[in-house]
Formats: sequence, structure tokens, C-alpha cells
Amino acid sequence: MKNIFLKISYDGTDFHGWQRQPNLLTAQGEVERVLSILCAKDIRINGSSRTDAKVHALGQVANFKAEFSIPVDKIKYVANKLLHRGVQILEAKEVDENFNAISCTLNKTYVYKIKNTRDINPFHRNFVYYVEKELDVVEMRKGAEYIVGEHDFKCFQASGGEEVVSTVRRVNFLNIDKQGEDITIEINGNGFLYKMVRNIVGTLVEVGWGRREPVEVKSIIESKDRSKAGHTAEPQGLYLKEIFYE
Amino acid sequence: MKNIFLKISYDGTDFHGWQRQPNLLTAQGEVERVLSILCAKDIRINGSSRTDAKVHALGQVANFKAEFSIPVDKIKYVANKLLHRGVQILEAKEVDENFNAISCTLNKTYVYKIKNTRDINPFHRNFVYYVEKELDVVEMRKGAEYIVGEHDFKCFQASGGEEVVSTVRRVNFLNIDKQGEDITIEINGNGFLYKMVRNIVGTLVEVGWGRREPVEVKSIIESKDRSKAGHTAEPQGLYLKEIFYE
Repeated sequence: MKNIFLKISYDGTDFHGWQRQPNLLTAQGEVERVLSILCAKDIRINGSSRTDAKVHALGQVANFKAEFSIPVDKIKYVANKLLHRGVQILEAKEVDENFNAISCTLNKTYVYKIKNTRDINPFHRNFVYYVEKELDVVEMRKGAEYIVGEHDFKCFQASGGEEVVSTVRRVNFLNIDKQGEDITIEINGNGFLYKMVRNIVGTLVEVGWGRREPVEVKSIIESKDRSKAGHTAEPQGLYLKEIFYE
Repeated sequence: MKNIFLKISYDGTDFHGWQRQPNLLTAQGEVERVLSILCAKDIRINGSSRTDAKVHALGQVANFKAEFSIPVDKIKYVANKLLHRGVQILEAKEVDENFNAISCTLNKTYVYKIKNTRDINPFHRNFVYYVEKELDVVEMRKGAEYIVGEHDFKCFQASGGEEVVSTVRRVNFLNIDKQGEDITIEINGNGFLYKMVRNIVGTLVEVGWGRREPVEVKSIIESKDRSKAGHTAEPQGLYLKEIFYE
């Protein structure tokens, strides 16, 4: 029995998210379809992060265990020929039997891209969140300081996700960069609740608009009340960038 | 009666080409739908180039004549709010009554983008033609020299387009640039036959593969026979870049 590590990239535009769903095109479902052909048996993969519809991945990680005859070093090339071009395998390799893409995750980095302009470029529409009203990133950075660290992030958890035992997570860093109209938010943590990144971004955007004071972020977290936080930023600005393992 | 000049950009991925078609999403149809709302009457626009499904435009030009009450300097902003984000107006201005986006065209520039690699980036798949086998751009440039100038380009005309009086066109320049795996072909001419750019690119790609000698391009043109030329390069690599008027 081999244990195969997969690093996967996808443009989320055409997919109903990562997770397999009957009769819908999903990134996981598509990779499983193709691996099942290559391995000549039903393959189910274990993905580290369940991204939502239209959310992208630069480095999703998954693993699967199976006996199969195709050489491991051929998987990437052959699978990519058969896969929808919107999802491609970046790396496929054999790993230790104890590796599990979900439970071995140490922390993950997400990137969120905003374009702060009223002029929409048709070529960027599926890849950024267009925010027309001017954002003050200095204020956003002040608000972001309250998010870094270990907190109960229940206020940023949307309903509808998986049941979780605890809503406490540790955010290791949250950087906000601005280059002209491009605002890039990079956030790393040991785990994220359902729609947590998008709810954090939506809240920081409202701080950037001046609609909320930066210090409000502190009381929002303390409230543990989703209705106190800001809007959910659009999915197409979000990228699962990298997952870190031991 | 005002005569309005429009410069339009679109990501062709979601569109069944430029030209209006019943019950299909097209760039022209979408712009007409929105202008008809703004002008409170049926608007039909005159587009300079009929691009095919999946072909992009950085600077399509169109015009329309109508009486309407919305200020011309508001058209761009309001229309873009109502338009599908895949097609946006870059410029809208009043011009002389004699301006016609089709008949006043002096020449046009198309850009064609190739990625010469076997690794597909999911984020680029709708915006370039992926060519796996290595291309020799020095040979492609030699072949391109036979295309520049005034010729009967019947060999590069696909069937199924509009009837044309003459298949003679003048190509002013055809430049091939290579930066790593990115090959960019820029071609300017006084007019292009149906699928002419994509047929030229497909033929030059076959020269770049070594499947044809550069000098064959000369005999292909002289043959006036479509079956002698190469394949039609994929639509998603093609961009209508700019249209020039007096």
C-alpha cells in the first residue's frame, strides 16, 4: 500500500468548491475521477482544506493510500493530461504511511487579493475582490493587530460548515500590503473556521472604509457573535497559498 | 442625433464571441442590452471586429447613433455597473457623425499568446495557447517574413465567415517575441480574413516544430489553398489589441 502526497493548484472559477459533491464539478471530485482511471480502482483523496466555490488554491495538499501499478513519477504528467485544465497536480510523491494531509497540518497560509478601484478589468474579475470605495490600509493594519494571536474566533465563523470541537485558533501573522490599487492580505494560522478568512477580510475592509474603528475588532472577537463582525468578502479574492507540515 | 464611439475590453471566456446571437451571451449582445436600458430605446452597435468565441479584446471599437438623455460622460461608469464583468467599456465619447467603427478602420493589431511548456497553470488556461513541443522562434520568424506585405491570403481564410469581395490584405508587421516559455506574436494589418490570425499562428507553430520549412509559408500563400496551411491555433490565445483610425 502506497501513501501518495499530492500538491494541487486550481482556479476555483469553474468549480463548486473543493469537496466532492454528486453531479457537480468540484476540484476533489475531478482529481478523484482521474486518479481512479490511472489506478484502475475507486480512489478517494483526503484534502487538507475545504475551499468554497470560486475560491482558488495555489497549494492545496491531499493524500491517498492505494495499491496501483502506474509509477508514482508518472502520476503528475499523466493525470494533468486527463484533468480539467482548471485543476492541475503540481507534485505527486510517495510519503511515509503516517502522513495525513488533514491531521498532520501544522499551519496554513491564505492570500486575499483586493483591487481598490472603480474600474473593473474583465481579465481580473474572477481573481480579486473589487472594492470601489477607498480603503485606508493604515487603519486596516491597526485592526489586524487584534486578530494575531490565539483567540476564540467564533465571531468569524459562518454557519453551515463542519461541526468543530473548539473555535479557538492561533493566527501567526496577518500582513496587509498595498501596491497602488492592489491590496494583498496574507494570513497564516494553525487552522481556520468556516469562512473565517473571508469574514476577517470583510471586517477589515469596513475598518478601511472608516465605518468601524480598528479597536472594534477587539470587541467583535470578545463578543463571539457573528452578527457583530463585518460582511463576508467575495470568494474569488481568496487563495489557499500553502500548507505547512512538520 | 449623437454618434458615440466606444472602446471595449472583454475576456472572451464566457462569451459566444462578439456578434449578437439570439439566446446566447455575446459581448455585442451584452453591451447592446445595457445601452438599451441607459438610452431607453433599442440600441444596435457597430463593432469593428467580429471576434470568435473565447477570443479576447483589449480594445474592440464600436459606434452607435441615437438620441438619448443620459450625459455621454456618464455612459462608461453606469454601463459598467450593469454589464457582465467580463465585458467593460474603457471609453465612451461623442465623435463626428461620419465616424464608423468598421469602414473608418485603417488597421488593427492582434496579439497571440503561446506558452511553450508542458506544465499548465490553471490560472492561465483561458488566456494562452499551451504548446508542449519546443518551438524554434528563429525558424518561426523566418516563416513570418513571407507573410508581411500585401498578399492574397485566401490560404489562411477559414470557411464559414462573412463573404468578402477580395482576399487580398496587407500585413504591416508580424513580430515574434520570446521571454522564457512565453511566446508573443503581434500582427498588424489593414484587415484580417475569417480566422486568418489563428491560421497564420498555427502554420508558424508547425514551422517552429520543424514540421515545415520556413520557405513553405511562401508556397502556402501562393497556393491560395486552405488545406495547404497549418492548423487553426486555439481561440483563447488571441487578443484584439488595438484598432487604428485616421
